[in-house]
Amino acid sequence: MDFLMDKTEENREEEGQVVNPWEVSSSAGKIDYDKLIDKFGCQRLDHSLVHRVQSLTGRPPHVFLRRGVFFAHRDFHEILDAYERGDKFYLYTGRGPSSEALHLGHLIPFMFTKYLQDVFKVPLVIQLTDDEKCMWKNLSVEESQRLARENAKDIIACGFDITKTFIFSDFDYVGGAFYKNMVRVSKCVTYNKAVGIFGFTGEDHIGKVSFPPVQAVPSFPSSFPHLFNSKDNPRCLIPCAIDQDPYFRMTRDVAPRIGYHKPALIESSFFPALQGENGKMSASDPNSAIYVTDSGKVIKNKINKYAFSGGRESVELHRKHGANLEVDIPVKYLSFFLEDDAELEHIKKEYGVGHMLTGEVKQRLTQVLTELVERHQTARAAVTDEMVDAFMAVRPLPNMFN
Amino acid sequence: MDFLMDKTEENREEEGQVVNPWEVSSSAGKIDYDKLIDKFGCQRLDHSLVHRVQSLTGRPPHVFLRRGVFFAHRDFHEILDAYERGDKFYLYTGRGPSSEALHLGHLIPFMFTKYLQDVFKVPLVIQLTDDEKCMWKNLSVEESQRLARENAKDIIACGFDITKTFIFSDFDYVGGAFYKNMVRVSKCVTYNKAVGIFGFTGEDHIGKVSFPPVQAVPSFPSSFPHLFNSKDNPRCLIPCAIDQDPYFRMTRDVAPRIGYHKPALIESSFFPALQGENGKMSASDPNSAIYVTDSGKVIKNKINKYAFSGGRESVELHRKHGANLEVDIPVKYLSFFLEDDAELEHIKKEYGVGHMLTGEVKQRLTQVLTELVERHQTARAAVTDEMVDAFMAVRPLPNMFN
Repeated sequence: MDFLMDKTEENREEEGQVVNPWEVSSSAGKIDYDKLIDKFGCQRLDHSLVHRVQSLTGRPPHVFLRRGVFFAHRDFHEILDAYERGDKFYLYTGRGPSSEALHLGHLIPFMFTKYLQDVFKVPLVIQLTDDEKCMWKNLSVEESQRLARENAKDIIACGFDITKTFIFSDFDYVGGAFYKNMVRVSKCVTYNKAVGIFGFTGEDHIGKVSFPPVQAVPSFPSSFPHLFNSKDNPRCLIPCAIDQDPYFRMTRDVAPRIGYHKPALIESSFFPALQGENGKMSASDPNSAIYVTDSGKVIKNKINKYAFSGGRESVELHRKHGANLEVDIPVKYLSFFLEDDAELEHIKKEYGVGHMLTGEVKQRLTQVLTELVERHQTARAAVTDEMVDAFMAVRPLPNMFN
Repeated sequence: MDFLMDKTEENREEEGQVVNPWEVSSSAGKIDYDKLIDKFGCQRLDHSLVHRVQSLTGRPPHVFLRRGVFFAHRDFHEILDAYERGDKFYLYTGRGPSSEALHLGHLIPFMFTKYLQDVFKVPLVIQLTDDEKCMWKNLSVEESQRLARENAKDIIACGFDITKTFIFSDFDYVGGAFYKNMVRVSKCVTYNKAVGIFGFTGEDHIGKVSFPPVQAVPSFPSSFPHLFNSKDNPRCLIPCAIDQDPYFRMTRDVAPRIGYHKPALIESSFFPALQGENGKMSASDPNSAIYVTDSGKVIKNKINKYAFSGGRESVELHRKHGANLEVDIPVKYLSFFLEDDAELEHIKKEYGVGHMLTGEVKQRLTQVLTELVERHQTARAAVTDEMVDAFMAVRPLPNMFN
């Protein structure tokens, strides 16, 4: 499970765009999210739902909600109905620990999940799929586990409430009730069906074929007997990037056949590479993304040097035509991370008509991201091994719904 | 894992005989074991090895060894070499708990494994593949687990040494070090390879594709950190019926690639149905087998009514030609379960020349099996739930090599 995956995998489809857990690409350059919603059969997250979140929680909707970063959903309205009735639900998200340091794109689902946990006051399970990364990235078991713990520190640094949050690594936690649910799910999915959903080939190893149930079963509360007793049957809401949708399409298909609720989903678009929406963030090119470990100096340099600009070739042309905001990465990034709606609108307007220059926008972005990253670094430095152990301890969370 | 499987599964090969974990059949009626040894690439267990067991252990070889019930092996001589050098090894066998009561065929690997444990004084792990049966037989998780515990009682009744024996159910035990080894194995087996070994089709569910690593990893001592520490690296010897060979061919192929010893195997032929070697023991036909729950009266009746006889059509013809021992089930069964070599030879001789009648042989078989089954029933009645818990407790076995 990952926000953005490398595109090194097989199974390229002979069509315009490919979005699955291992590949996000489009021959047109930009992903057509409307087409994706149609193809996947999920729903657009429209303004009325965002307003409903606001009125139910009495809190302003998160930037990622009001600016459409989370743009699609499955049954999110049912979660809101349940919440309105006073019924319980819980959150499930995760990460595939394939790298030492997270980049900004990796933070997005966690920042958003923290917001959901705060405003709805609900428990959260976070799956670290170290088994998946061991199998897909050919990391050793030990290295995958080490990365899982390192990534857990970054996740904890996002500010999750330890009284409501259970973080687990598959290598630690698979077994017991969780494994029983894996078997229940596996029985309901033929190999042909899995190929249809995930595009496996005969040369893929059987670990890949075995994995989808591992990511499926945290959707079912009975996979966590230390958290939920068998009388409780809370719904599950999964915030994730839309490339994870195939896992949960499968899960939703299977759930009613084994007596469980279908999990609901709230799905984000992808965070673009510095080089632009046609580029990709790649672990092999550290200049394609800003990492949470980058210093202010590195951030400034990356933005100035690599952030694709929609500004014009000369100051004269720019003053005349204004920036092309459609392709401008500094503005895109600001729309993810600049909280102030009025300031963002001001920048877009002034930049769009050519009053503001790329350098000025990049300078503001550098400020915003440096602040964000430094705040993260400070928080992460305070995360001890004992805290990781505490978040990952298999334990009841008696006040998790309060 | 099972000694004898029903033959209801798909993957019938278009050839003379099919032997895999889910099907044992031959168009010729009888299984050609020489052909099987060639096809699987295992070795015949010859007299010199049997003698070597006798001289190394100072005990007479088990009936199943000296009469060729266990007839094939892989690297068994290396286990004996290791034993001779004073190196450690352990035993691994198992059962797929698909039925309430075991029949005589099911007892064979356990009776033989108990002998091996006794004479070599080695630890033993017994896997109950309740996950497999849940997936293949479409039993619920709960029913599979219940059957696993019931079957564990029959297994314990075979007399295993609790200070040297760990019995586990997959639903209980999969996880941790065991799961890590499952992932390590899964990475090394492509889907195409699994299809080649097991004959899966696209309409098989992915649980089936996921299962072979579950049966593979008890071959590796690191799957049992409570038993073996990482410095110990004992070899593993697997007594099983030859239909399980595909699992361990796969395991042996993978083992050196992930830094483990290949498990050694000692493999048995199949126990025939009452109706003869062309028949099959079938859970849907209780008269095809003698169950460990059968009363003396039922045993007598089944033998008299169903045991296929090699005797002739009339007493006159029988006295003249003698019995056809090649097809005679009472003699076959006696050769499994009548301990006394001299008496067996006497019966075969007298019956073969027509001095003895089928009725007399059947009467002797009824005695032998009634005694065996009653002894088993008495032992099983003494197995309490606490004893099952004790055998299945995840615990160190400090004296298991003594």
